[in-house]
Amino acid sequence: MDLDSYCNDLARQAREASRKLATALGKNKNRWLELAADALESHAAEIQEANAKDLADASRYGLAPAAIDRLTLTPARIKAAANGLREIVALPDPIGRVLSSVVRPNGLRIDKVGVPLGVVFFIYESRPNVTVDAAGLCVKSGNAIILRGGKEAIHSNLCLHRILQDCLAKADLPPHAVQLVSTTDREAVGKLLGMNRHIDLAIPRGGESLIRRVAEEATMPVLKHYMGNCHVYVDQAANLDMALKILVNSKTHRTGVCNAAESLLVHQAVAKTFLPRAGESLGAKGVEIRGCSVTRSLIPQAKPATDDDYAAEFLDLIISCKVVAGVEEAIDHIARFGSQHTEAIITDHLPTAERFQAAVDSSAVMVNASTRFNDGFEFGLGAEIGISTDKFHARGPCGLEELCSYKYLVHGQGQIRE
Amino acid sequence: MDLDSYCNDLARQAREASRKLATALGKNKNRWLELAADALESHAAEIQEANAKDLADASRYGLAPAAIDRLTLTPARIKAAANGLREIVALPDPIGRVLSSVVRPNGLRIDKVGVPLGVVFFIYESRPNVTVDAAGLCVKSGNAIILRGGKEAIHSNLCLHRILQDCLAKADLPPHAVQLVSTTDREAVGKLLGMNRHIDLAIPRGGESLIRRVAEEATMPVLKHYMGNCHVYVDQAANLDMALKILVNSKTHRTGVCNAAESLLVHQAVAKTFLPRAGESLGAKGVEIRGCSVTRSLIPQAKPATDDDYAAEFLDLIISCKVVAGVEEAIDHIARFGSQHTEAIITDHLPTAERFQAAVDSSAVMVNASTRFNDGFEFGLGAEIGISTDKFHARGPCGLEELCSYKYLVHGQGQIRE
Repeated sequence: MDLDSYCNDLARQAREASRKLATALGKNKNRWLELAADALESHAAEIQEANAKDLADASRYGLAPAAIDRLTLTPARIKAAANGLREIVALPDPIGRVLSSVVRPNGLRIDKVGVPLGVVFFIYESRPNVTVDAAGLCVKSGNAIILRGGKEAIHSNLCLHRILQDCLAKADLPPHAVQLVSTTDREAVGKLLGMNRHIDLAIPRGGESLIRRVAEEATMPVLKHYMGNCHVYVDQAANLDMALKILVNSKTHRTGVCNAAESLLVHQAVAKTFLPRAGESLGAKGVEIRGCSVTRSLIPQAKPATDDDYAAEFLDLIISCKVVAGVEEAIDHIARFGSQHTEAIITDHLPTAERFQAAVDSSAVMVNASTRFNDGFEFGLGAEIGISTDKFHARGPCGLEELCSYKYLVHGQGQIRE
Repeated sequence: MDLDSYCNDLARQAREASRKLATALGKNKNRWLELAADALESHAAEIQEANAKDLADASRYGLAPAAIDRLTLTPARIKAAANGLREIVALPDPIGRVLSSVVRPNGLRIDKVGVPLGVVFFIYESRPNVTVDAAGLCVKSGNAIILRGGKEAIHSNLCLHRILQDCLAKADLPPHAVQLVSTTDREAVGKLLGMNRHIDLAIPRGGESLIRRVAEEATMPVLKHYMGNCHVYVDQAANLDMALKILVNSKTHRTGVCNAAESLLVHQAVAKTFLPRAGESLGAKGVEIRGCSVTRSLIPQAKPATDDDYAAEFLDLIISCKVVAGVEEAIDHIARFGSQHTEAIITDHLPTAERFQAAVDSSAVMVNASTRFNDGFEFGLGAEIGISTDKFHARGPCGLEELCSYKYLVHGQGQIRE
């Protein structure tokens, strides 16, 4: 079959499956999650065999050690993926619930209810556990999913997909609810991104170049997850012990994640007290500091910061640092260099906290807490399919509810417009 | 100034204004709405003078009588536009309100609050009253707006815009919160659609070709308002008197609007009783019927319907008609030919009503009510900026809340991730 027909079939089958899935009973969706979780565990040996083929090819693809680690499926990771599905069972079904309801003076009752988006095209890099997470979230939210993982994980994904799909019929769900693009041909992505008649949403997850490519080529809406250049602002009225603890946690708890701090802003009134301590604590964790001249005068090992440093998402043991005149300069600096992802202020002064939270336009604005908390699990949303840096549709952690739209159900007794 | 710099300045100024507007007090936004309403009324003569220039040019642009009517600003219409602004005063401010709130086991309180989208680029045809409505909705929802009306209304729009903008400073709001593209150069639209760094959303309102052009060229999200091919399905268990009343209202109350019925589906068991009556009532209103063979056997004057007729948004005194075997065929027909806008079922049979409402994927699904009720005012949302046929972000009537995004405000006491 040629690539056009193949992609067309995938998209059309997904659309047909999505129509059935939209009215599927929650108990069937949960049954599938449970069956799939059990099947992943009982087929662990087979999954590891497929994964071994990918790992054997990894050097040919020139994967770095960190990427090979993410590609690797151990028995513990397979069990974790299965348990991820079981956790989704416990989450409330987002479909059909009444979000709001109004009775109009003419007696019409208008209920706004949750519905699936339809068909999701999910494009991601070589982390096979994401295959399982994404399928689980989409099926539970009533969306058909077309999975397109990185070529480096193709054997693992084909195996995982077959296991997930086999369980759909057993749970009375349409088998095309979960499909995998089985070719590694890059052109398939472009073709599918053109099919907005059948695909309602594209979700790219991975590096910035992948996301930009998808955003440019997609003819349907895209839920983007760009970079996180997250700031910690230590205010004049900060509890400095707390500030130090939060700064170190935000920067070093995990460096390779989007909600790690990349930039430190310090009020000039506390710079002399705070920065030497910050320099010491960050230095002890191996963090390189790139700062303004005041920073460098207070932290001897700090290197000079450029505008590029202030704009950077390092994802590494590096932090940029600037001493500011006050909260307004901090707000302006974040508006100029930030990525609207996550920022934190450390302060005990209520009006300053309120001003910072009101004026900073990021998906999460923390007061006296680590930036690392911007996360679906930490927010109590359950599993997430990504953290949106868009303001349109969904912002911040995207779980089941963010994979939904709504419609209005109008209940009348013969009303007409006069 | 060249067009590039002009468009750049518009977009940059809008972004700067949006940052101020995002934290503006509701009383200032309401003050502006009241001042602008008063100013429109006190400058009515001046507005009509500008409008007269557009009307004098209308024949040069080859405008049809209906378009000239929409372009015309009478004293009554100016008063109606002013009153539209006053109605927005009474609507609750959507910014800063807590949409949901959770306290996590670690003591973090996480509030999800409403925020503006930012900068809206609004492209519309030659209805100058829309200039006023759109500016009012955007300012109240904290969004800066760039208005681009049809060239046929440029004098009216320049005059209205000056009046609206003059009142911004008096209400302590940034003057660039409401801007108008003052050139009629078509290239300006393309340039602004490329500026996704400063413009967060494009809203085209007008014919399908305008919407398609904007959707294709825009680099930012687009809130689309495509056509409405709305269906009325008369079920076997319908109260046929009610069905007739709702059918005639849906089709003929206003024919040129998106929530008018364009297609009638009738259950085969009631076709013999219902269709002759429908043919008579619709015929008396001058409606042409294009139907399937069964329809034509029951309504002598009916013409044959093609698939194009079933897919058409006539916006005229024409309706397509098909006799179906039951609710499932009606659902499938709507999935194939519909536009996901508005459909209605007439039935007294509860399970059939529930099945229709669950399976039909449209922004509003009515039971025993006219399709004409899918409207922001009728739904109690207040004024609307359009009716979205998208499922992403907002669906159906878009008022103040649909012009908003949200952010998470996290309140901690020193929490870090362990």
